[in-house]
Amino acid sequence: MSIDPKRLRKAYEQLKADAEAGGYHLNPDESWTLGLIEGILTNEDRYGYGSCPCRLATGEKMEDLDIICPCDYRDPDLNDWGACYCALYVSSEVLAGKRPLQSVVERRPTTREKAADRPLPASGIRLWRCKVCGYLCAREHAPDVCPICKAKQDRFEAFVLPPDALPGP
Amino acid sequence: MSIDPKRLRKAYEQLKADAEAGGYHLNPDESWTLGLIEGILTNEDRYGYGSCPCRLATGEKMEDLDIICPCDYRDPDLNDWGACYCALYVSSEVLAGKRPLQSVVERRPTTREKAADRPLPASGIRLWRCKVCGYLCAREHAPDVCPICKAKQDRFEAFVLPPDALPGP
Amino acid sequence: MSIDPKRLRKAYEQLKADAEAGGYHLNPDESWTLGLIEGILTNEDRYGYGSCPCRLATGEKMEDLDIICPCDYRDPDLNDWGACYCALYVSSEVLAGKRPLQSVVERRPTTREKAADRPLPASGIRLWRCKVCGYLCAREHAPDVCPICKAKQDRFEAFVLPPDALPGP
Repeated sequence: MSIDPKRLRKAYEQLKADAEAGGYHLNPDESWTLGLIEGILTNEDRYGYGSCPCRLATGEKMEDLDIICPCDYRDPDLNDWGACYCALYVSSEVLAGKRPLQSVVERRPTTREKAADRPLPASGIRLWRCKVCGYLCAREHAPDVCPICKAKQDRFEAFVLPPDALPGP
Repeated sequence: MSIDPKRLRKAYEQLKADAEAGGYHLNPDESWTLGLIEGILTNEDRYGYGSCPCRLATGEKMEDLDIICPCDYRDPDLNDWGACYCALYVSSEVLAGKRPLQSVVERRPTTREKAADRPLPASGIRLWRCKVCGYLCAREHAPDVCPICKAKQDRFEAFVLPPDALPGP
Repeated sequence: MSIDPKRLRKAYEQLKADAEAGGYHLNPDESWTLGLIEGILTNEDRYGYGSCPCRLATGEKMEDLDIICPCDYRDPDLNDWGACYCALYVSSEVLAGKRPLQSVVERRPTTREKAADRPLPASGIRLWRCKVCGYLCAREHAPDVCPICKAKQDRFEAFVLPPDALPGP
């Protein structure tokens, strides 16, 4: 179960570079972060995919797709709490010490909730546009910083795609 | 008011790396560029946000949102003039010496112009799609290079989002 | 016709860094890759644009826009074959040795096919959304990894933009 230190260090460096390039930040507490990445690599070896080290995986990839790190909940959690569920990723406010790290309430739906059909929002799909470079993304809140030009969250404007832009196969 | 040289150098390196990663270029005249970045950092200390070093800030962040560097006018200016208003950013043509640096006419609307309601274009929102990698952005002209795959401007095609894709809150 | 080794090395390093930053991978066989890049640079000197080293260019840029490297066919080829036509770029599966390198069938339309009008798909434009970070792109298949957050292909969901999102000038 123990992860080779060289592999762990390499994974850390890669994850950190990818995070920064995309406008994300790893938790600056390196030993905390290394411990979490060790958990991800352990899951990778055990299940064949790097699921979240702070959640119990089923071992069925299709069941766990939403908690493969980075999980589907990271970005809303960064927005609402300043960190992801594990505090592997932190927002730039937390990184700058302008906001304290706090516990994150689990937002992952239970199996029962997932089983219930979740219809598409009748109001359409929320698009965010960076007013500086025109970057577009579809998510609940604008990103912390624009991954392309690094403009901050308050430089984004929202659009709504009409609901007849239906999900396709 | 003077900026610590280490802080200035670090800001320069970060800005340069971010620029290149996103398909932008800082002015290769390093002393010019350092002078501008010093101005941005001075504004950061004075106002709490790094507004454009070549324009007068009001000190009210919401008033100056459009001139926090990179400003809302950088990308159209890069397209039309080959440089931003300050010549902090230059286009790849200018960088390669294929186009001379020239003065940029201020396109920022005056307070009076901003006060007038600017309705959404009835013709819809202009989308650009990179034919190589599918990157999408919403802006007046296609970017100088694709920030994802670095394909050049002439590899983009335009689409128009119908006007019923309304801006949402 | 021979390319200066320093220029070749510099082009290789730049291309590799750009590829990795955008979620792409150069062929790890360095001598193969260097040979292809030498071909691209030779074309750059000969024609003024770096067309694909494995295809015959006309010398008319507008005719060859689709085969300037990275070509318009790279990403569908990466998806279907695990490599581009030249095997300059390979998918992450091929890189990890989970899929063999194989020959790629040319998908570039012939001149005659190109001359025939290709109407817009009546079904609209296929959009892919990364469920992790909200990245949007318009292409046939989801990318190998998300260029922003590096989530894998199976984390993307498809939408269809209605066909009245017409291509604009």
